[in-house]
Amino acid sequence: MRQHNFNSGPSVLPQQVLQEAAKAIIDFNGIGLSLLEVGHRTPHFVAVIEEAKQLVKELMQLNDEYEVLFLHGGATTQFMQIPMNLLDTNATAAYIDNGIWGNKAVKEASLFGNINVIASSADKKHTYINQNFDIPANAAYLHITSNNTVEGTQWHQFPTTDVPLIADMSSDIFSRQIDFKKFSLIYAGAQKNMGAAGVNLVVVKKSILGKIERKIPAIMDYRNHIEAGSLLNTPPVFAIYVAMLTLRWIKQEGGLEIMELNAIAKATLLYDTIDSLPLFNCRIDKASRSNMNAVFFIDNEDLQNKFLEECKANGMVGVKGYRTVGGIRVSMYNALAMESVIAITDLMKNFAAKHS
Amino acid sequence: MRQHNFNSGPSVLPQQVLQEAAKAIIDFNGIGLSLLEVGHRTPHFVAVIEEAKQLVKELMQLNDEYEVLFLHGGATTQFMQIPMNLLDTNATAAYIDNGIWGNKAVKEASLFGNINVIASSADKKHTYINQNFDIPANAAYLHITSNNTVEGTQWHQFPTTDVPLIADMSSDIFSRQIDFKKFSLIYAGAQKNMGAAGVNLVVVKKSILGKIERKIPAIMDYRNHIEAGSLLNTPPVFAIYVAMLTLRWIKQEGGLEIMELNAIAKATLLYDTIDSLPLFNCRIDKASRSNMNAVFFIDNEDLQNKFLEECKANGMVGVKGYRTVGGIRVSMYNALAMESVIAITDLMKNFAAKHS
Repeated sequence: MRQHNFNSGPSVLPQQVLQEAAKAIIDFNGIGLSLLEVGHRTPHFVAVIEEAKQLVKELMQLNDEYEVLFLHGGATTQFMQIPMNLLDTNATAAYIDNGIWGNKAVKEASLFGNINVIASSADKKHTYINQNFDIPANAAYLHITSNNTVEGTQWHQFPTTDVPLIADMSSDIFSRQIDFKKFSLIYAGAQKNMGAAGVNLVVVKKSILGKIERKIPAIMDYRNHIEAGSLLNTPPVFAIYVAMLTLRWIKQEGGLEIMELNAIAKATLLYDTIDSLPLFNCRIDKASRSNMNAVFFIDNEDLQNKFLEECKANGMVGVKGYRTVGGIRVSMYNALAMESVIAITDLMKNFAAKHS
Repeated sequence: MRQHNFNSGPSVLPQQVLQEAAKAIIDFNGIGLSLLEVGHRTPHFVAVIEEAKQLVKELMQLNDEYEVLFLHGGATTQFMQIPMNLLDTNATAAYIDNGIWGNKAVKEASLFGNINVIASSADKKHTYINQNFDIPANAAYLHITSNNTVEGTQWHQFPTTDVPLIADMSSDIFSRQIDFKKFSLIYAGAQKNMGAAGVNLVVVKKSILGKIERKIPAIMDYRNHIEAGSLLNTPPVFAIYVAMLTLRWIKQEGGLEIMELNAIAKATLLYDTIDSLPLFNCRIDKASRSNMNAVFFIDNEDLQNKFLEECKANGMVGVKGYRTVGGIRVSMYNALAMESVIAITDLMKNFAAKHS
């Protein structure tokens, strides 16, 4: 029986994508070879990566000032690769620390130049998005995390600035309409809204590159990947294929407008249920609540454990909070059906009725 | 119709592995979730990575002085990561340049310290393995490439040295019995003998780590990955699963002893056919010929193109030589059936009879 999958990532994917990916593992497009056995420079695979890039540009409504790259690794690799490419040893970059992943990005960047953390929500355990800051005019760039998977917060309005704006969108990419042109670099590990773990989407405005003095290892230099069309070395073929299938699915479903409507509908049902039941307690500032990851608690820990067990018994997985935060976390990525949110909110109501 | 797959990588995989991988994409071990939807820290996936590590140690006959890591990226990432972890800015590492990939490793390492290329076969267009060298006693390590995929050469005996020996085994890993204890670090991109593109196997002797002064980005530091059991960040889940299935298949077939016997049998048939037909010309020094990748030519280029077309017409793919080398390349990795080598040698004989 298929489970209700509330995993925070790797996470639920569209059934149609899984079916097509499985088929390609046996025989790719009827060519008598598995997708895994195909050379990455053959027309078979080049068509895949080109379609994926085109779909990204189309969904983001970006023009040719931007390049779309599919690189090895996850967001953590980008924590290093971004300052390596964009921050000179004596220059300063501005970072905002609104959660554990943004914080890790700061630590990694500190090896490459000066880091100015211009805002943090650590004072309230990262339960809100701190948007109160001044951006130093000389900053090489400003780095933010659009959605905090662990804490359950999300930026709902992005800053406007002349400094190149960089966002880690790993956990809410393609879940809503955004003016992507505001950003100079957007990156996302694929394993939430975009497919399977093992590939990074990097969308970069070409004009920000080539401005620093550091010698960059060839495999880390965005310019080399642009020149090689994301085929500098053997790319993560399968993960790129799954990303392409997922992007196709997003477009077919109606694009980002529909993804956003669905995300709001699911999140509204869940947060309304939490707010209507005194047993459940969401500590996140209302204006900062994430539509992707809802983090909440039952203050009585025994009861909370009991609730987590009931989720499991009812075929719901991935509901336990992150190890440093605890509590309950319900992730509602694009591929999660409304039906799953109805199932868990029904369970919450029944549980509250029994235990209040 | 299934093709004869002579691709150099990504390349042919065992049918059994493809079937099981496809099944796991739909429903992993009957848990009601796809393998792509499973959290990497769940017991479901931890069992996979632990089995993969165990199989590597067993096949290589290595003890606990060594750690097995599955990291994002391909061998090119290791070209950077190795000197980053093992070479101080003022120290010197010895490299051997017997082919295009070894040469790229030299270039990438040069950003991190002094590189002493102690042997090269560039004088004869990399048509042999230059084993004539002295290793400076103060070298931080010696780096070699065990098999040159592009040129079609292979080390058949490895140097003995007190300096830590490092080998890129991307294109002949698990194809033969080797005294792996001779090496301090072995690495391989998975997409040849070990599965799907998107993961790197790194086997490292722990005692060589932690000896340099450079601050290493967290995601690049082998010690962090060891401590986290290859789960420092979300790993390339699917590629690790396929590697595990492929390692299981190798063991089930009889291990490295059988892989080696099969490799020798296939290579012997192919090279004997080349040597018996004056139309075909293998320029590689006999003692350096690779059992994985045979590179050879028809000196008349029109005829060579005709041969490549006939291969295609007969359901044989991946036979064209690398773009910088030209000619014909037949890759014969573990999963390639003897039947495929019989098919291409039959074609070669018929072609030679018609055109000599």
